Amino acid sequence: MKKVTVIGGGTGSFIVLTGLKKYPVDLAAIITMMDSGGSTGKLRDQLGVLPPGDLRQCLVALSEASSLWRQLFLYRFEHGDLKGHNFGNIFISALEKVSSNYDEVIETANYVLKTKGQVIPVTFDKVHLCVEYEDGHIIKGESNIDENNTNPHRIVRAFLEPYASLNPKAKQRLEESDVIILGPGDLYTSTIPVLLVEDVQEIIRSSKALIIYNLNLMSKYGQTSHYTAKDHVHDITHYLGREPNIVIENNGQIPVEIAKWYEKYQETKIVNDLHGNGFAGTIIEEDVIDRNVFAKNTSDVLTRSILRHDPEKLAKILLRYI
Amino acid sequence: MKKVTVIGGGTGSFIVLTGLKKYPVDLAAIITMMDSGGSTGKLRDQLGVLPPGDLRQCLVALSEASSLWRQLFLYRFEHGDLKGHNFGNIFISALEKVSSNYDEVIETANYVLKTKGQVIPVTFDKVHLCVEYEDGHIIKGESNIDENNTNPHRIVRAFLEPYASLNPKAKQRLEESDVIILGPGDLYTSTIPVLLVEDVQEIIRSSKALIIYNLNLMSKYGQTSHYTAKDHVHDITHYLGREPNIVIENNGQIPVEIAKWYEKYQETKIVNDLHGNGFAGTIIEEDVIDRNVFAKNTSDVLTRSILRHDPEKLAKILLRYI
Repeated sequence: MKKVTVIGGGTGSFIVLTGLKKYPVDLAAIITMMDSGGSTGKLRDQLGVLPPGDLRQCLVALSEASSLWRQLFLYRFEHGDLKGHNFGNIFISALEKVSSNYDEVIETANYVLKTKGQVIPVTFDKVHLCVEYEDGHIIKGESNIDENNTNPHRIVRAFLEPYASLNPKAKQRLEESDVIILGPGDLYTSTIPVLLVEDVQEIIRSSKALIIYNLNLMSKYGQTSHYTAKDHVHDITHYLGREPNIVIENNGQIPVEIAKWYEKYQETKIVNDLHGNGFAGTIIEEDVIDRNVFAKNTSDVLTRSILRHDPEKLAKILLRYI
Repeated sequence: MKKVTVIGGGTGSFIVLTGLKKYPVDLAAIITMMDSGGSTGKLRDQLGVLPPGDLRQCLVALSEASSLWRQLFLYRFEHGDLKGHNFGNIFISALEKVSSNYDEVIETANYVLKTKGQVIPVTFDKVHLCVEYEDGHIIKGESNIDENNTNPHRIVRAFLEPYASLNPKAKQRLEESDVIILGPGDLYTSTIPVLLVEDVQEIIRSSKALIIYNLNLMSKYGQTSHYTAKDHVHDITHYLGREPNIVIENNGQIPVEIAKWYEKYQETKIVNDLHGNGFAGTIIEEDVIDRNVFAKNTSDVLTRSILRHDPEKLAKILLRYI
């Protein structure tokens, strides 16, 4: 079986893993450990644990346990002392407290969730993501970059503080991978952080693995404001140390009311401008939007989560190259 | 195999179950669901769940999972939003939120903890324990009765508010039991609450099961102030509707410094005065104190938890009658 490795964390990686897990591939996810927002950020600060959120999402994506276990791990408390905390995050944090090492944490979570494939933290070092903008402004902390960030300038540099050493299991997996998949996901807060860890760029640059990059559907203000496909690929190439072999772009129509909602936040559909712009790899343009989410949405409230990649559509495209 | 049913919750039931689980008996615990203090009380109030604490302790006692799982379920968070909350309680509460019924909660907990035997909540109704003292004073809520209660009078009546219907599984188990074990544990806040639930007294009174009562080592101020063995058996008999067949009393020496520590709280060693006082059952007097706890105790701080029954000593006595 081909060794397919997904890089990132968050909803984007959840979708790719969910789609691919039904097929006969040897799956692994190498997870960013730089999240500092929400329930994860609080647990990190208050308990001194590694950030559990991205790990938890990928574990659930790869879970073949009953839906009850998946629901439990995604359950968020709505009241009292635990309000806003996700059960899966609490589980992983408590497990870290009683385990002798982080491998034991992951093994135990794998056991209850019956995960198919591996979930591998890119580092066990407690580090923070920093970005520097064109105007010289530096923001430290994943959540500060992610949330309410209205810096209109481009990010010119991303780095980790302090130094993050590579988890040996992540190193081995990267070296053995036949296919490496990046995105979808927030470019600077989900995808690039993994590439900033010690040796990752070097291993990927010299790897024979096929690199596939799933472009996001929309730009994100303060992080990829006004970015086109070319801008995304430019930045990914910079941190990868090589161009992706394949880029998957969406050409499906985004419903007008959803596009309008995003416009209020100065976020727009990614323009597909890779053709004729010097990109040497394969460009795939298909409708990858999850239309089921629209159908299910009965509320008038629009959120970012309504516009997503379809796990099945994406998996079918990816499988052509795996 | 003989069907042995332990009634209660808390540390006392934990000890009895821990001792008996190594032997070939069909074990079950019927659990009080009236706890309203600490982490359990907060979760109950804030999330509207059933009290998880007693259930969790009995599940861990019967667990044959690796020590990691038992440690995890007993882990208490020390900092931040989760401070004071026990992981096992959080697990059971979140599970209740995503499960379709409470049987599913227990099955899922049984699965991860590999419990030997059954843990059965006595009721699924959300009720509170109340006690009335000789002076007419009524206290409502298990934690209010348990903590900082300095009423010097005797309790003359215990009741539940509102009415608690009996869990059909608890009913069936009580009817099938060969042996029913009560105590050790706080008389009014751990043992008697189970006996107050619909039909329990009637089932036990007409049952052919052997009833064994493990007397506590010390009295508890505000609940069993100045109680002797006879007083305990009197109250238990009142709420059972029949006398226990066997009462196990401690005759082991309590170290002077520990007895002195308890004296500060007006709590004293239970006087064994059952002989010649009209009790028709079997009286067993043995040293049932856990001496290992003293040996392990390296701190200068004494707490109630240092004086406990020894699971092994107690099990060996119980097995003579099972």
